[in-house]
Amino acid sequence: MRLRSTFLATDTMVRTDSRGTRYLSLKLVDKTGSVDARMWRLPAELLHGLDGPEYVHVEGHAHEYRGMLQVKVERMNVLSKDEVEEEDYLPSTEEDRITLADELVEAGRGFENTHLKELFARIVADEELWSAFCAAPAAKGMHHARIGGLLEHSVNCLRVARALAEIYPVDKDLLFFGAIFHDVGKTQELSWKEGGFGYTTPGRLQGHVVLGDRIVAAHAAQVPGFPEELALQLSHVMLSHQGEREYGSPEQPKTLEALLVNLVDNLDARAAMFLETTHNVAAGGWSHHNNPLGRALYVPDEPSEGPEANRTKGDAIAGN
Amino acid sequence: MRLRSTFLATDTMVRTDSRGTRYLSLKLVDKTGSVDARMWRLPAELLHGLDGPEYVHVEGHAHEYRGMLQVKVERMNVLSKDEVEEEDYLPSTEEDRITLADELVEAGRGFENTHLKELFARIVADEELWSAFCAAPAAKGMHHARIGGLLEHSVNCLRVARALAEIYPVDKDLLFFGAIFHDVGKTQELSWKEGGFGYTTPGRLQGHVVLGDRIVAAHAAQVPGFPEELALQLSHVMLSHQGEREYGSPEQPKTLEALLVNLVDNLDARAAMFLETTHNVAAGGWSHHNNPLGRALYVPDEPSEGPEANRTKGDAIAGN
Amino acid sequence: MRLRSTFLATDTMVRTDSRGTRYLSLKLVDKTGSVDARMWRLPAELLHGLDGPEYVHVEGHAHEYRGMLQVKVERMNVLSKDEVEEEDYLPSTEEDRITLADELVEAGRGFENTHLKELFARIVADEELWSAFCAAPAAKGMHHARIGGLLEHSVNCLRVARALAEIYPVDKDLLFFGAIFHDVGKTQELSWKEGGFGYTTPGRLQGHVVLGDRIVAAHAAQVPGFPEELALQLSHVMLSHQGEREYGSPEQPKTLEALLVNLVDNLDARAAMFLETTHNVAAGGWSHHNNPLGRALYVPDEPSEGPEANRTKGDAIAGN
Amino acid sequence: MRLRSTFLATDTMVRTDSRGTRYLSLKLVDKTGSVDARMWRLPAELLHGLDGPEYVHVEGHAHEYRGMLQVKVERMNVLSKDEVEEEDYLPSTEEDRITLADELVEAGRGFENTHLKELFARIVADEELWSAFCAAPAAKGMHHARIGGLLEHSVNCLRVARALAEIYPVDKDLLFFGAIFHDVGKTQELSWKEGGFGYTTPGRLQGHVVLGDRIVAAHAAQVPGFPEELALQLSHVMLSHQGEREYGSPEQPKTLEALLVNLVDNLDARAAMFLETTHNVAAGGWSHHNNPLGRALYVPDEPSEGPEANRTKGDAIAGN
Amino acid sequence: MRLRSTFLATDTMVRTDSRGTRYLSLKLVDKTGSVDARMWRLPAELLHGLDGPEYVHVEGHAHEYRGMLQVKVERMNVLSKDEVEEEDYLPSTEEDRITLADELVEAGRGFENTHLKELFARIVADEELWSAFCAAPAAKGMHHARIGGLLEHSVNCLRVARALAEIYPVDKDLLFFGAIFHDVGKTQELSWKEGGFGYTTPGRLQGHVVLGDRIVAAHAAQVPGFPEELALQLSHVMLSHQGEREYGSPEQPKTLEALLVNLVDNLDARAAMFLETTHNVAAGGWSHHNNPLGRALYVPDEPSEGPEANRTKGDAIAGN
Amino acid sequence: MRLRSTFLATDTMVRTDSRGTRYLSLKLVDKTGSVDARMWRLPAELLHGLDGPEYVHVEGHAHEYRGMLQVKVERMNVLSKDEVEEEDYLPSTEEDRITLADELVEAGRGFENTHLKELFARIVADEELWSAFCAAPAAKGMHHARIGGLLEHSVNCLRVARALAEIYPVDKDLLFFGAIFHDVGKTQELSWKEGGFGYTTPGRLQGHVVLGDRIVAAHAAQVPGFPEELALQLSHVMLSHQGEREYGSPEQPKTLEALLVNLVDNLDARAAMFLETTHNVAAGGWSHHNNPLGRALYVPDEPSEGPEANRTKGDAIAGN
Repeated sequence: MRLRSTFLATDTMVRTDSRGTRYLSLKLVDKTGSVDARMWRLPAELLHGLDGPEYVHVEGHAHEYRGMLQVKVERMNVLSKDEVEEEDYLPSTEEDRITLADELVEAGRGFENTHLKELFARIVADEELWSAFCAAPAAKGMHHARIGGLLEHSVNCLRVARALAEIYPVDKDLLFFGAIFHDVGKTQELSWKEGGFGYTTPGRLQGHVVLGDRIVAAHAAQVPGFPEELALQLSHVMLSHQGEREYGSPEQPKTLEALLVNLVDNLDARAAMFLETTHNVAAGGWSHHNNPLGRALYVPDEPSEGPEANRTKGDAIAGN
Repeated sequence: MRLRSTFLATDTMVRTDSRGTRYLSLKLVDKTGSVDARMWRLPAELLHGLDGPEYVHVEGHAHEYRGMLQVKVERMNVLSKDEVEEEDYLPSTEEDRITLADELVEAGRGFENTHLKELFARIVADEELWSAFCAAPAAKGMHHARIGGLLEHSVNCLRVARALAEIYPVDKDLLFFGAIFHDVGKTQELSWKEGGFGYTTPGRLQGHVVLGDRIVAAHAAQVPGFPEELALQLSHVMLSHQGEREYGSPEQPKTLEALLVNLVDNLDARAAMFLETTHNVAAGGWSHHNNPLGRALYVPDEPSEGPEANRTKGDAIAGN
Repeated sequence: MRLRSTFLATDTMVRTDSRGTRYLSLKLVDKTGSVDARMWRLPAELLHGLDGPEYVHVEGHAHEYRGMLQVKVERMNVLSKDEVEEEDYLPSTEEDRITLADELVEAGRGFENTHLKELFARIVADEELWSAFCAAPAAKGMHHARIGGLLEHSVNCLRVARALAEIYPVDKDLLFFGAIFHDVGKTQELSWKEGGFGYTTPGRLQGHVVLGDRIVAAHAAQVPGFPEELALQLSHVMLSHQGEREYGSPEQPKTLEALLVNLVDNLDARAAMFLETTHNVAAGGWSHHNNPLGRALYVPDEPSEGPEANRTKGDAIAGN
Repeated sequence: MRLRSTFLATDTMVRTDSRGTRYLSLKLVDKTGSVDARMWRLPAELLHGLDGPEYVHVEGHAHEYRGMLQVKVERMNVLSKDEVEEEDYLPSTEEDRITLADELVEAGRGFENTHLKELFARIVADEELWSAFCAAPAAKGMHHARIGGLLEHSVNCLRVARALAEIYPVDKDLLFFGAIFHDVGKTQELSWKEGGFGYTTPGRLQGHVVLGDRIVAAHAAQVPGFPEELALQLSHVMLSHQGEREYGSPEQPKTLEALLVNLVDNLDARAAMFLETTHNVAAGGWSHHNNPLGRALYVPDEPSEGPEANRTKGDAIAGN
Repeated sequence: MRLRSTFLATDTMVRTDSRGTRYLSLKLVDKTGSVDARMWRLPAELLHGLDGPEYVHVEGHAHEYRGMLQVKVERMNVLSKDEVEEEDYLPSTEEDRITLADELVEAGRGFENTHLKELFARIVADEELWSAFCAAPAAKGMHHARIGGLLEHSVNCLRVARALAEIYPVDKDLLFFGAIFHDVGKTQELSWKEGGFGYTTPGRLQGHVVLGDRIVAAHAAQVPGFPEELALQLSHVMLSHQGEREYGSPEQPKTLEALLVNLVDNLDARAAMFLETTHNVAAGGWSHHNNPLGRALYVPDEPSEGPEANRTKGDAIAGN
Repeated sequence: MRLRSTFLATDTMVRTDSRGTRYLSLKLVDKTGSVDARMWRLPAELLHGLDGPEYVHVEGHAHEYRGMLQVKVERMNVLSKDEVEEEDYLPSTEEDRITLADELVEAGRGFENTHLKELFARIVADEELWSAFCAAPAAKGMHHARIGGLLEHSVNCLRVARALAEIYPVDKDLLFFGAIFHDVGKTQELSWKEGGFGYTTPGRLQGHVVLGDRIVAAHAAQVPGFPEELALQLSHVMLSHQGEREYGSPEQPKTLEALLVNLVDNLDARAAMFLETTHNVAAGGWSHHNNPLGRALYVPDEPSEGPEANRTKGDAIAGN
């Protein structure tokens, strides 16, 4: 597959192959993620690699190597920082963030419980909070570590929750509210503006579980007549969504809504870890062992009958 | 609530209340589950309780006591075994088993993958296996421990899996097959015919994970041209569905389909544990601590605005 | 040791000794704790024991049996509830609560940090909170499970913290504040008014760690000009005082003050578990294995040279 | 000790010693294992080390350094691949594989149970399986990671099992069968033909425990009249030999034969880990900490009375 | 099987069967272990059971009930303590203790290492120690909890160690010494003279690992010229024989001899737990779940071909 | 802050900054600890870094970088080994060791228990032991890893213990003895003379817990009339001071004195880990994550009101 594009080049190292030839090993990063690359026949200015991350224009071929996608670079020119938009190289959701946000807002408008409905509206109306919620990553590196990742995760949780509400006798609005906002504390726990993703000091000292509980409690306190019992249940959903104490929830889920929010959160997080880890793995190939799920993952070889015939959506090839 | 019905009476004990009066404490069991009961003003023949479980006709009142439903027995007559149908007193699903089974069969008919479609058809055509699958409990006591429980669990897993197939790029047929049949080994691991639910000797020596893998592999071997790669993926789904080695899976899930089957299984099992534990708990009340989730569970007090207004279905009161 | 006193008699059981004689086994409870008792030569009205807990007047002897204190009852009369003050039989601190509370108030007055000093003063001025703080037990049953137990625990923590402030370069006021108030959430987590000690619904759904953080944050928000950084550090002390996530702290201690509060809390709790478990154990004897420390505990046999010569204070014999 | 031999040279790195002199650090590998080496006075062609593993002819001295054997290289010539037999440099058992295999076959011929005897004969007669069994390593890297390693491990397990059969009331044939074949699934779990040792895809998706159970079950199904109860016990031995669920056995050992197979397997594996880790450690020296047993291991300094006087066999010096 | 014998009757309870008839449930204990028993048609003096353990003469039948041996008592007379020898009813080894002890002494005489040989001789010559070693149980209740149990365990460990010394390059004398004496500290950790088996105060405060190390070190200090290095290795074997810190060894085994002593100890302990738990279980039956191995154990149904044909020794029926 | 001083330079690496300029990254070590450093504008002799650790004279500036102290080197001259005293560059306590030792000796002189008093005196009189005790580090790397570190730790433990003796009814002398000498086995477990800190062979095979118990027991055996019960309690304090089996104590603390020694040891060790980890961290900054406490640690930003106003002592800036 022919490739002509710009990337952020990182992790460059000069190595020697089994025939004694020097080559450059590097990572090419853009909004969609990263891919391993190799370059032989090094021009003089690349003989010693790059001095740290640089924006580059690359020509080459993408091909499969040991079951994973790899780029063979033919030409590579370093760009000046003026030539690029830095944000084009921050990992970012491939979905349309406005569409995703609208799906959430629509859900909130459909609430029957007037208290939760108003609470939802107030959160959306809090511009600083809502814009952070739509931009934040869902984690520093485990899953959905990209601009808009928290939004993606929240939408997925809502979609699964909708199916569950058809099966179990649950307070729909409370479940949906929790599915959407359980991780709202990440808007204060994480920072994502200075290039990389990191933790804030309040994030490290208090954690997103407590920060999220406070955000929701503070807005609920503004809703006139918000019932104390509902506030208590809501707080429990927020505090217990990590499921177990060792994952940072001071109490385990003890209501059905809290339990389901925890399970839905866990399900989408693990599915995302799988998908992100196998992003560049070809059919029949194995990922590296060292990933958030702690085991090598397998992308099945398509059985004979019509490859991808009933695979529902998405592809596993990094493009640009 | 006035109550006139027949039950299996178990766990009878004579106790003395705080005013020094003797009373009978017992459990009343029927198809729908069990409820705690108390009887004062004991007739002579009940002064020393019952000698083991007995079928009884009871008159009394159901009322709430410390947040849980309890029956105050006013009259109780022991029935002879000839007067009852034993199976009426085995816990059993409240759903219609034929309807549930049809939902599964219909799903199998919709498969696009012809190999999996034929495999599914052969399993349904194996009368002994299929009828066991529709009758077996899903566990000895943790969740869905009732006639038809395995069927209920399989249907719920399929329903959640359908929602996931809309979200993640998954092999739908493989996911649905796993969602439905991951626990098929329980038809050989558990016994449910001699009154109670228990483990068979093969169940204890091999476990339902391996037994289920064998059942599916044996039927797949009968399907002409069943692809080896598909058989391998299918076997992996069966073997890894417990998710972690310490829960009895010799390998962790390493394909997306295997991972989702594990997560869906876990989700429905935990939801069921919650619902079964809180079956008799009134709004605002707490369950006993000693249940499969290992913590007291809370059934929220309805907030002021229209009780149950948006609760989706089901009730939490034992009836007959 | 001759004994004539009133108690709450609980756990009465009729047993038969090795010579075939019937006797009554029971526990005698008063403010100071409980002691095992036996009664032979049962009068007619006690032949079948008591119907639940009763207030009794007892005459008998306290003696040592298998290394633990036991009472041999000679006479026992049941009292009517009118004859007793119920609170005399609720386990309660032996210390003077006013003196203990004064020690804390005095410490707060000595703060150099004006913000923390005012915060402390506001908490003391919040009559409902402060009187709850001076009355609450420190736990349902692990340690300091008695009226005033939280106060005792807080005073001990302060005293140890004072020694640490001489050794480590610490923010004294913050350390002392945390030593005193880390468990203030127990005033909302526990209930102690209806006879026994138990958990409230907010206590079970949110836990004392988060409840305490909220109490302190709410009062700090009332102090004009309370620095944000100080509020953050304070919140961290409250949230992390359990030390590890599996003990209910959403974050581990990451400042020196938070670390020391956690260690002091743990130290006093474990010392109290030891002392309460060995309350009735004689020198050279062993406690039961089944206690909060999870092992049998030993009260050393005094070596020959002057028993108790340098034992600092306290005794280990239940009196009345 | 003078050394003149050919090796596979791996892990070459150019370093600088404490006097500022450059030297080459490398590993010398042959059939018997590997040894650390150093080379000073580098000729021009080695100034930058080697470009990956190369076959070399080495002259130098083996000596002890910090308690471990090390080679000081004086001359080193790179060989062309035509000059060597690749298999001479794959780690391989030092025992005679035919003799070992005969010991097993002889054991099988001595079985009294005619069903197990025939099953054993069929496995030996399955040429593909049996030759794989005699060639496979017992693990990728933990212990017996060498050609013939599985055979060595099986023979050792049989030998220990023979002693146990004299002590405990056990079904000898079943115990010996399990001791020999518990790891037969490794013939399908591992690959050892393309130079290194690795996992196959079925190995990662199903694991050697289930693969081995299937191999044995498939062969037993070919033995006419093989008793179902015996097949069940045999399957249990295969499935439970890892001892605990977290080590990959779906059920724990529940028969005496299964328990002993598990314990014998564990014993030989750990002894092998010890011996392989201390292969190059001199008397009185310590191994590296980083080995399969997770701790530094000690090879005792011989006490004064006749070194090695009663050490039974083997030596700990790598030769060629 | 007709039964006429004397026992210690314990755990007597009056119960009511499913037809409402009262019966006595009890345990019958003698030197060989214990068996469950039931008695119907109670004579007047047994209507309320026994007041604690009593020596009894029993007539009845032993039969199988739910896969376990049970005695149906027809007559039972209480004996006076003068009629019995108390020690006849303390669980005790069925082996001849003198023969077992001789096997150990003979092993010690065969040592080649003169230091260990003399150390061994001194331990045997220490009459108080040696007679305690030959009488002590190996544990309070886990395995070999019987008079002579420590001796039996030591002999078994020696026998397995002999097989290992043929396989691994080990210091034979050190291995055999450790196999025999690793648990010698149990002579001071346990008490077995006052009827039951229990822990001493030094046993609880120091544990048998340290106590055993001290015993051996004290005797080695008496051997002139005992090498320091040998004393260190010996001490390491004693201290590390529990294998892991959480089992009470302050260090893990780091020499081959220490590792093998740990593995042999573990092997015999687990085999004994199996055998003792299944003592009364019939072929094809399951033990109770509640035993030291923490799982129900299975005694296989003999396959058709000649039951017990190749079972090596022992039987599983309690006799007298 | 201008800096002119001599150090041991370690961990030198040549790196390239983001503008492509080469610089040297290194660590500067002296008695007081270590600090990260960077040097640009490399003179010819430093272009390839240093060949291992070298003593150097440095001129430069200390400044804060990402919240941690860092040195920017301007000039650096390598010194010959003759020019330096090696011990000046071994990390060492900043306290006066004689003053610290006197504080302990004084405490021993104040004992009321004559047996413990004499035991203490004998330990101090054992010149080899006492001088080792005053020189040893308290650990290889976790905390107090410096000459005199064991002494510092012992003094701190004594100081905390004094406060506890005012609060709990404890045997003061036994508590103080344990607080001072619980780690005395480290004098034999660790080596600190050949430049770095390491483990001895007895240290690895027996551990400081058992070694310390032996040292104290051997000296107590020299004290005429030392009571056996006191020796037992003392031994228990020594053996159990690690608190849990998994930390190397063969028994958990079961007396109050043993429990408090364990808690005090733990408290000072953790406080030291905190202080040593944050040594170079500026106010408002975070330490590296990789330290003995296993989490990044925070040095609070001073709130507005008078920085350090009530911070008790010490500073966090490395000087010379």
